[in-house]
Amino acid sequence: MTALDRLPGFRDFYPEPLPTPDAWSADLRQHVFDVWRQTSRRYGFREYDGPPLEPLELYTQKSGAEIVSQLFNFTDKGDREVSLRPEMTPTVARMVAAAERAYKKPIKWFSMPQLFRYEKQQKGRLREHFQLNCDIFGEVSTGADAEIVALLIDVLRGFGLTSEDFVIRLSSRTAWQQFFEQAGGNPTQAYDFYQVVDKLDREPSEVSGPKLQALGIQPETVQKFLLEGTPNSELASVLENLRARGLGDFVRVDYGIIRGLAYYTGIVFEAFDRKGEFRAIAGGGRYDGLVRQVSGGKLDLPALGFGMGDVVLAELLKARGKVPAFTSGVDAVVLIEDEALRSESLAVVQRLRDAGHAVDYSLVPQKADKQFKRAQELGARSTVRLESTPEGLRARIKQLSTRQERLVPADQVSL
Amino acid sequence: MTALDRLPGFRDFYPEPLPTPDAWSADLRQHVFDVWRQTSRRYGFREYDGPPLEPLELYTQKSGAEIVSQLFNFTDKGDREVSLRPEMTPTVARMVAAAERAYKKPIKWFSMPQLFRYEKQQKGRLREHFQLNCDIFGEVSTGADAEIVALLIDVLRGFGLTSEDFVIRLSSRTAWQQFFEQAGGNPTQAYDFYQVVDKLDREPSEVSGPKLQALGIQPETVQKFLLEGTPNSELASVLENLRARGLGDFVRVDYGIIRGLAYYTGIVFEAFDRKGEFRAIAGGGRYDGLVRQVSGGKLDLPALGFGMGDVVLAELLKARGKVPAFTSGVDAVVLIEDEALRSESLAVVQRLRDAGHAVDYSLVPQKADKQFKRAQELGARSTVRLESTPEGLRARIKQLSTRQERLVPADQVSL
Repeated sequence: MTALDRLPGFRDFYPEPLPTPDAWSADLRQHVFDVWRQTSRRYGFREYDGPPLEPLELYTQKSGAEIVSQLFNFTDKGDREVSLRPEMTPTVARMVAAAERAYKKPIKWFSMPQLFRYEKQQKGRLREHFQLNCDIFGEVSTGADAEIVALLIDVLRGFGLTSEDFVIRLSSRTAWQQFFEQAGGNPTQAYDFYQVVDKLDREPSEVSGPKLQALGIQPETVQKFLLEGTPNSELASVLENLRARGLGDFVRVDYGIIRGLAYYTGIVFEAFDRKGEFRAIAGGGRYDGLVRQVSGGKLDLPALGFGMGDVVLAELLKARGKVPAFTSGVDAVVLIEDEALRSESLAVVQRLRDAGHAVDYSLVPQKADKQFKRAQELGARSTVRLESTPEGLRARIKQLSTRQERLVPADQVSL
Repeated sequence: MTALDRLPGFRDFYPEPLPTPDAWSADLRQHVFDVWRQTSRRYGFREYDGPPLEPLELYTQKSGAEIVSQLFNFTDKGDREVSLRPEMTPTVARMVAAAERAYKKPIKWFSMPQLFRYEKQQKGRLREHFQLNCDIFGEVSTGADAEIVALLIDVLRGFGLTSEDFVIRLSSRTAWQQFFEQAGGNPTQAYDFYQVVDKLDREPSEVSGPKLQALGIQPETVQKFLLEGTPNSELASVLENLRARGLGDFVRVDYGIIRGLAYYTGIVFEAFDRKGEFRAIAGGGRYDGLVRQVSGGKLDLPALGFGMGDVVLAELLKARGKVPAFTSGVDAVVLIEDEALRSESLAVVQRLRDAGHAVDYSLVPQKADKQFKRAQELGARSTVRLESTPEGLRARIKQLSTRQERLVPADQVSL
């Protein structure tokens, strides 16, 4: 028998206070989930979820076979080729294609799935993360693009981040497509071109230059387009919409954003920390052709959305001091100093819990000072202790912050 | 290109109103999660989570190789034998073993993982479900058993179920073990014996009888024990504790409960609907040896807990009329009847969302009556509409239930 560890690249989430400084906090995860969910709901988005295991083909039909090297895929006991989901967009496109007739358009949905990629093993490189996915289906207007970008901004603001902390870089696949075709590129090679542009930041020009030339594009024209851009009515409309909401400070046009995935068709965007210390916090855009593809051509529904992972976000919140202090959540501790009163004390515990309070107590006989110390450690607001008095059983309720006490009949205890 | 469906035995969760009567509701799932989480917190339990993918050995070392036929297991790209988690207890035992020194005892933790089993494909038989797991580590006293059973009861009460709807059947592996040894059984065969007892309900006596005799046990003595039981101080103590909380009506001793899993060591229990229409709603018990096993013998920590799946629970809630009516959650719809006021209307949308309200509006120009109809469909409490007046821009706020209206300056809108 040996002690077993978890798999590399996977996380355990522990309650605070954390056992080690590098442990992942279940409380922080829940805080992230709460802000994600609450903000999405404020925007009128509805929650959905799909299976974490999907047919492998759901991913290969869109991204080609080369994606398989990055997947947790296998053959199941029914001889099906399956994969843990590496992203949520194909799943939601499948779900919408199957059920869209039942829903009024636009469909505004969100989900918070755990996603899996078989990444090369590196320090700090994870193989799973949670990702907020917000999508709108059935609306071609840029009003939808602006709504989805506004939601992204407000999710980040929900964590206490400001326009000093992050910026949304907006771009347009449409504009890049026009550039590529006007520069003499072959439309069937547009995606290869986007891939090169996507890596311009990371690849030296000796690598990217020849790649561009092979596609019939002069590298200088790309550099010029990156610097000067082009008038684009889609981007102008989104910017105007966001300014009307008072969110203009959170966005800027940046044609350096193009997004690596194959299926984007219109406006694309990424969220970055202003200091440039982290990878992209979130990214998304329009993918008007994906529902048609996933539905086998049966349904053509415009779509757009973004994804925001929990890992970079948590790093950013820690670096900017935006992680709240987490407590045990216990409201009161019932002190059982007289074991003869344990049964009656249990009735008090039950009464307070029935009233909605989080209540703890010692499961076994324990010295009074230890019980009180535990109440303090838990950050309880109150202690409750039963006392036999000539008038009957009384509960002494003490507020720990003010040390104020009150004495009430045991069957009328309340916080 | 063909339309892809999800894998058999896996669920999509859709927002209400549902697209088909047999679709799974994301809103109901969230309701289940909310009650699970809130009730666990009221009992002072803290949330944790672990990876959905674990080393295969975590399950085989405990349950033997035969469990593999029921697992979603595979060899990953790093040649590791891995499995989707079929249950949470080995994971939490591993996590506690790794970090218990950082936590005060008893450790009271809960989690709501999705679990996976490669079940034989049958109608309505799923291959994944969500399961509330509540566990206590580090306490041998029956006070802990009573606390965990009380939590189970209050979780079910949290859904509006009463003692008319469900009962907890309490039993004791210790009592069964004593019976087995006194009846002449070989202690090394105790688990084989429990397996036969576990199936007594489902197997005809022609099958179970010979099995018992092969273990050296007369079937009549088992029947007698089932009917008459035996004095057991553990069970008596748990019952007394629950009665002190006023929860006595929710439990009864039933030696027919023994639990199939190998690792239980003391009190065991299952929750059933009173009408006997469904499979067990929840089950659990003591597993004092598992942490020692998972830690490779390094740590010996008593433990107990229960699991409650979402599938049987959802069926029961539907059958007993305990599923609440779900709404869109939208508080207000901003009506944009004059497109010249779209920018100003977006500012109002933003102001209301910033104040924490869930707000929707039409992303594109739309007829006034359609917008109002949509507000009614969404169940919004209010509509807000901007009007240009001689005194400046005003917001007309209408409460849909009372039809009361008020007019305020656009920059002072509130609900």
